[in-house]
Amino acid sequence: MPVNFTPTPREQLLPISGISLGVAEANIKKPGRKDLLVMAIEDHAEVSAVFTQNRFCAAPVTIARNHLESGKSIRALVINTGNANAGTGDEGLSRATTVCSALSELIGCNPEQVLPFSTGVIMEPLPVDKITQGLPSCVDHLGQADWFDAAQAIMTTDIVPKAFSKQVSISGQTATITGIAKGSGMIHPNMATMLGFIATDAAVPQAVLQAILQHATAKSFNCITVDGDTSTNDACVLIATGKGGAQVSGTTGDDYLALRDAVTEVATLLAQAIVRDGEGATKFMTIQVEDGKNEAECRRIAYAIAHSPLVKTAFFASDPNLGRILAAIGYAGIHDLDVSKLQLFLGDVLVAENGGRAASYREADGQRIMQQPEILVRVVLHRGAANATVWTCDFSYDYVKINAEYRS
Amino acid sequence: MPVNFTPTPREQLLPISGISLGVAEANIKKPGRKDLLVMAIEDHAEVSAVFTQNRFCAAPVTIARNHLESGKSIRALVINTGNANAGTGDEGLSRATTVCSALSELIGCNPEQVLPFSTGVIMEPLPVDKITQGLPSCVDHLGQADWFDAAQAIMTTDIVPKAFSKQVSISGQTATITGIAKGSGMIHPNMATMLGFIATDAAVPQAVLQAILQHATAKSFNCITVDGDTSTNDACVLIATGKGGAQVSGTTGDDYLALRDAVTEVATLLAQAIVRDGEGATKFMTIQVEDGKNEAECRRIAYAIAHSPLVKTAFFASDPNLGRILAAIGYAGIHDLDVSKLQLFLGDVLVAENGGRAASYREADGQRIMQQPEILVRVVLHRGAANATVWTCDFSYDYVKINAEYRS
Repeated sequence: MPVNFTPTPREQLLPISGISLGVAEANIKKPGRKDLLVMAIEDHAEVSAVFTQNRFCAAPVTIARNHLESGKSIRALVINTGNANAGTGDEGLSRATTVCSALSELIGCNPEQVLPFSTGVIMEPLPVDKITQGLPSCVDHLGQADWFDAAQAIMTTDIVPKAFSKQVSISGQTATITGIAKGSGMIHPNMATMLGFIATDAAVPQAVLQAILQHATAKSFNCITVDGDTSTNDACVLIATGKGGAQVSGTTGDDYLALRDAVTEVATLLAQAIVRDGEGATKFMTIQVEDGKNEAECRRIAYAIAHSPLVKTAFFASDPNLGRILAAIGYAGIHDLDVSKLQLFLGDVLVAENGGRAASYREADGQRIMQQPEILVRVVLHRGAANATVWTCDFSYDYVKINAEYRS
Repeated sequence: MPVNFTPTPREQLLPISGISLGVAEANIKKPGRKDLLVMAIEDHAEVSAVFTQNRFCAAPVTIARNHLESGKSIRALVINTGNANAGTGDEGLSRATTVCSALSELIGCNPEQVLPFSTGVIMEPLPVDKITQGLPSCVDHLGQADWFDAAQAIMTTDIVPKAFSKQVSISGQTATITGIAKGSGMIHPNMATMLGFIATDAAVPQAVLQAILQHATAKSFNCITVDGDTSTNDACVLIATGKGGAQVSGTTGDDYLALRDAVTEVATLLAQAIVRDGEGATKFMTIQVEDGKNEAECRRIAYAIAHSPLVKTAFFASDPNLGRILAAIGYAGIHDLDVSKLQLFLGDVLVAENGGRAASYREADGQRIMQQPEILVRVVLHRGAANATVWTCDFSYDYVKINAEYRS
């Protein structure tokens, strides 16, 4: 079960004026579940997106990038689960394009005004017929699905749907933000998460929207890892419909900061929800590296800890085998790191300093913290003013089970 | 059980003239097992060593480095299992020094002529009294233990002892080489393995010996990974006693190459044995990346595959979910990699080319290879002439079990 995470109740998810949602059962991988989502966007909205840096990026990532670069206004997103359409070569590109064309005909727009997204198994042909047959049902029901349905329709190995809403005041006008995300394994986003879709009814020019999205993903999805595997399909989209009264026109000032921080908060809640629902997760860990020379070295150390299978299995066992954290700090690749200067804390307990175990440390104190489902690991480097935070989960029998049986 | 690996029988391990071995039960972690090894070296031998690059290197690594740099001839190695004496600060250095002093008194040499090695749990104080109490028993029995006993005495989570012997002709004289190693988890050596000790009776000057060791570790221990965790205690030692008739005087010529290649072969067998006995391993995988621009990018791709928990769990399940290998290649960080140019083979089966599944690929063929205990993954990049090979194992329930219960 996810760690300290209850999905936001359906009634607390706020609709976004200018966005309508439709879902369908397209039987893509397994029958009897909603696996296809259409998100229709009214005209005059702005859309920005960030995508995976994986060289083997999926066909829909390439097509979505191209369509965004065409400069045409985006009128719909189409998202399927059950098949990633990644590692599928030219045929994959052709199938993703076919999906866009089919939807564009149904809603009356240019195929380039549709962005496709896929998630699921890699290197299997996209069942394009099932998807095109499911699209009319999505379109017929546009407006009948809500964000909770949408969050459910994009799940793969996720146990729970992930969705959050927030409202913020922009010069006296209320801006509403709602976002959904999916992801549980193959999670080490680089530019974006597996799939995240966030929308606001504020009016925001494209360049400003992109700046907000870059900031939000850097502080949220780009700070998490489940297994260190960067997906082929990572994408995060931010839509501003402009149908509410709030407006943000530049990348400075209180209004900009208010909207940026609210979007970042929704993105962070979604990113953390992905870790809490990480495959097989029983613990949620915050790795905070402080007082480093620069943010890059703080992130490097935080990720070395967060990716170590030995650290992750020790957390699963609630075993304060904390030397494994020192080992990970030591191999993070910071060549001039003086390990005698750093301090390691577990929650509020000082564990190590002066190159070894702190004199005040008692195993019982470490044990007490390790038994909690939510654990803070703090490394204070004492060599500068930079910080970084990474969120991750433990490594359990169920991680192996889920990934050994994924296709069966 | 280890993958396709039967320990070399005791009678096939060749003694090395000039080296005598003694083991004892020092009750360091668990009673009733040999956990302390003394390797005494006759005078006029040359000793070279390589050590971990982990910044949190263990106290014995620091002390052994210092003793080697003192220039005095090395007369003994002392190796304990059950405690790594890593992450132990100044107190750890003091305890490692105490062990060297105690042994030097027993055998009559300077403390700096002793090299200490430790392996086991990190960040717990070395039980120095137990070790010094065990040393007289080791020394009394010097010459009564053989290399099989020595290999057993240094095991931690290893299931089987790892030892190999080889003989090679050097200008008509026979040189004998015997080596032992331990390691099963926290295996991603950087300069050396967890612990490896190789000895030959050839006469070899120190500089030549160091060149042979650098070559051998680069081609063996530095090409393996179990879990991507670089240990705090990695060390590999090569001893040349000069008590046989064979001599190698420089770093060129047939004699040099013969000895270098024989040492490399022993080191490679030991390194592969560590992977075959990797914690929880059920599969042994060779990851071969060919035709890259340079060796660094080939190694980077090979390690991205070898470290991916998703790839490793798919191998555990014998599931040809090979898109996960493509994803790992894609996120290996080779920014100008054209994925449409590369080919992926599983054994002799072409799996992917032109950016997707090969037209000729049949799942049944992939399935057939995946069910074997020993699997070759070949990635042909078609962009240069460089190659790299990495050996690794799969990720099973037992890996989690072993590491969740390690200290209990």
